[in-house]
Amino acid sequence: MEQGKLFTETSNKVITCRAAIAWTTNAPLSIEKVEVDPPKAGEVRIKIISSGICGTDKHILEGKDKVPLPAILGHEGAGIVESIGEGVTSVKPGDKVLMFPLPECRECSSCLHPTGNFCLKESILPPTGLMLDGTSRFTCRGRKIYHLYGTSTFTEYTVVHEIAVGKIDDDAPMDTVCILSCEVPTGFGAVFNIAKVTPGSTCVVFGLGGIGSAVIMACKASGASRIIGVDIKEEKFPRARALGVTDCLNPQKLKKPVQEVVVEMTGKGADFAFEAIGLIDTMVATLESCHPSYGVAVIIGLAPTNSQLIFDPTLLLSGRTLKGGALGNYKTRSCIPKMVTDYLQKKINIDPLITHKLPFESINKAFELLQGGHCIRCVLFLRPR
Amino acid sequence: MEQGKLFTETSNKVITCRAAIAWTTNAPLSIEKVEVDPPKAGEVRIKIISSGICGTDKHILEGKDKVPLPAILGHEGAGIVESIGEGVTSVKPGDKVLMFPLPECRECSSCLHPTGNFCLKESILPPTGLMLDGTSRFTCRGRKIYHLYGTSTFTEYTVVHEIAVGKIDDDAPMDTVCILSCEVPTGFGAVFNIAKVTPGSTCVVFGLGGIGSAVIMACKASGASRIIGVDIKEEKFPRARALGVTDCLNPQKLKKPVQEVVVEMTGKGADFAFEAIGLIDTMVATLESCHPSYGVAVIIGLAPTNSQLIFDPTLLLSGRTLKGGALGNYKTRSCIPKMVTDYLQKKINIDPLITHKLPFESINKAFELLQGGHCIRCVLFLRPR
Repeated sequence: MEQGKLFTETSNKVITCRAAIAWTTNAPLSIEKVEVDPPKAGEVRIKIISSGICGTDKHILEGKDKVPLPAILGHEGAGIVESIGEGVTSVKPGDKVLMFPLPECRECSSCLHPTGNFCLKESILPPTGLMLDGTSRFTCRGRKIYHLYGTSTFTEYTVVHEIAVGKIDDDAPMDTVCILSCEVPTGFGAVFNIAKVTPGSTCVVFGLGGIGSAVIMACKASGASRIIGVDIKEEKFPRARALGVTDCLNPQKLKKPVQEVVVEMTGKGADFAFEAIGLIDTMVATLESCHPSYGVAVIIGLAPTNSQLIFDPTLLLSGRTLKGGALGNYKTRSCIPKMVTDYLQKKINIDPLITHKLPFESINKAFELLQGGHCIRCVLFLRPR
Repeated sequence: MEQGKLFTETSNKVITCRAAIAWTTNAPLSIEKVEVDPPKAGEVRIKIISSGICGTDKHILEGKDKVPLPAILGHEGAGIVESIGEGVTSVKPGDKVLMFPLPECRECSSCLHPTGNFCLKESILPPTGLMLDGTSRFTCRGRKIYHLYGTSTFTEYTVVHEIAVGKIDDDAPMDTVCILSCEVPTGFGAVFNIAKVTPGSTCVVFGLGGIGSAVIMACKASGASRIIGVDIKEEKFPRARALGVTDCLNPQKLKKPVQEVVVEMTGKGADFAFEAIGLIDTMVATLESCHPSYGVAVIIGLAPTNSQLIFDPTLLLSGRTLKGGALGNYKTRSCIPKMVTDYLQKKINIDPLITHKLPFESINKAFELLQGGHCIRCVLFLRPR
């Protein structure tokens, strides 16, 4: 049996392959040979085909979001199962899969709750950099290399818990679906599941990068009549307008705080406001931009480690709602593979969210594109060697 | 015609009556003779029959919530219309009415929104102490006396905007329905409208005073299976248990922060958490007490003036919701008179929320009862003279 053969032939062997190592912050990633251990019980080893680069990866490299280093970053990957550990039943070698920064164990109080998705087996808050057994599967030059959020996709092979892996359709295009691992559900779900944007409403989106762009598409799809986009990089404005933004604001060119301008533009405040950057100041601006009585502010960006949100609580007393969510509140394994099917059936469109594709070797160039605000999402593809 | 007669006879005259003046903070109220001007256009002069004393009145007297002084405090009143100003059509002299600290103008974006209630003609944030035309209707010893939240109920007569007055049933018992002006809708609405507590859920309530007690009754009515009550005054525990609290916690007697105890008691956090005190520390504890993935924290208490809520935004990223609301998100004039009818028809019960009734002259004793945690709500009644 092919499945059994693959299991016995490869699952016990260490794989040597290339990976981009973040040895330290504020330095380019270094593509090196790494050893990837075989998957342990409940784990899956995956050959990565493509990976998106998210703003959070950039924040980590900038030292804003602290994670254990050296590490293999990347948390938005599509790949093919290479081998499986003991007890794995939901995927088999050869399956096309996505891997999620948020697992779905289906046993914890979050997973068992009808609307919860923040699986308590996650390793984001705080980032442990390790598998659930407290160890790593990566070694480079004799040193232990940390994982990121249980994913680590800037590598030719990775090991992920089965509870963070979703089998997707056999005909899924592997060069694009990787962004369904994080960017698309995070943005779409912020609108559809968390804010529940209503037709005719006014929305404001802080940050016009990958997540913000997905938010815009979802606001548009929800029938928002006005979508205000906020970013300090005006190069992003034409793309944002093409996705549905009706008004663009550059806070650095305004004479008063952007939230005051939004409040004036909207009468008294937007119906829905989204923070898709991960900065404390814009989180407060997001809250202040929405209507005092019925405004809903959604925090999507991951704030710098140990930062504090500070605001006057009377902002809430008048009726505002402040909420957050990871992966758009989708239960990852249960919901996201269906989004891949929806994409194949052209029920959802994600193509505008990918503006650049680069080979894995160009990963530092991809980070430069992101840093400069030149791309929405740059996808790395890992060539067969 | 009796109505016209009343209007012409009294509506142009200044009324001299007794009122409790807050000349300064941290001092007893002083019952004095005041002059109450006739109602201007769109205003209603009301003979107060009863008034509740709310924690916010206490916070004002303690100097925590800053309002312009000297003032006539009190914002939870029931009375009878004495006279009406020009253009008033929704009430007439002789009508039994409640007066609300939150108006409903039915013209602003809050009022016109299907779920908004924070009428933009309110005078709470910030407290102006004046009518909408920027003047006061009260004079005492030749000095202008400020209003409170457009209500001012610690007086035999007050003047309120028509948009903050609701006509109630002729057979409404005037010694109890006053708490439907603030306490009851604030607590009930926090549960029914804002949190939307679900059957079988676990709730935690910080503060077992008047509002907290109303919250408990509503949680119980919503089918919550566990209600944890938190207060530093254990004298309140038996009453809280009688209303539905299943577990009582005194933070001063715990070895670790109360939110950690709640998280342990509930597995990972409560489904719904309510802050009914108005303190920054308990607001953060409320947020931390609820489940990271699906917990909903509702801020009801009015925080001290210019205070800042400070917390790690990752508390939200996992999926928590933080929201607030005034008057339980009820559109006051439209909804609260119906609650009076529901009370008369025994569809809702508010009687357990009133533990003490005292004559107006004993107002300072009533504040002492509140300060000591000896009452849920003490209602003042104003004897006919």
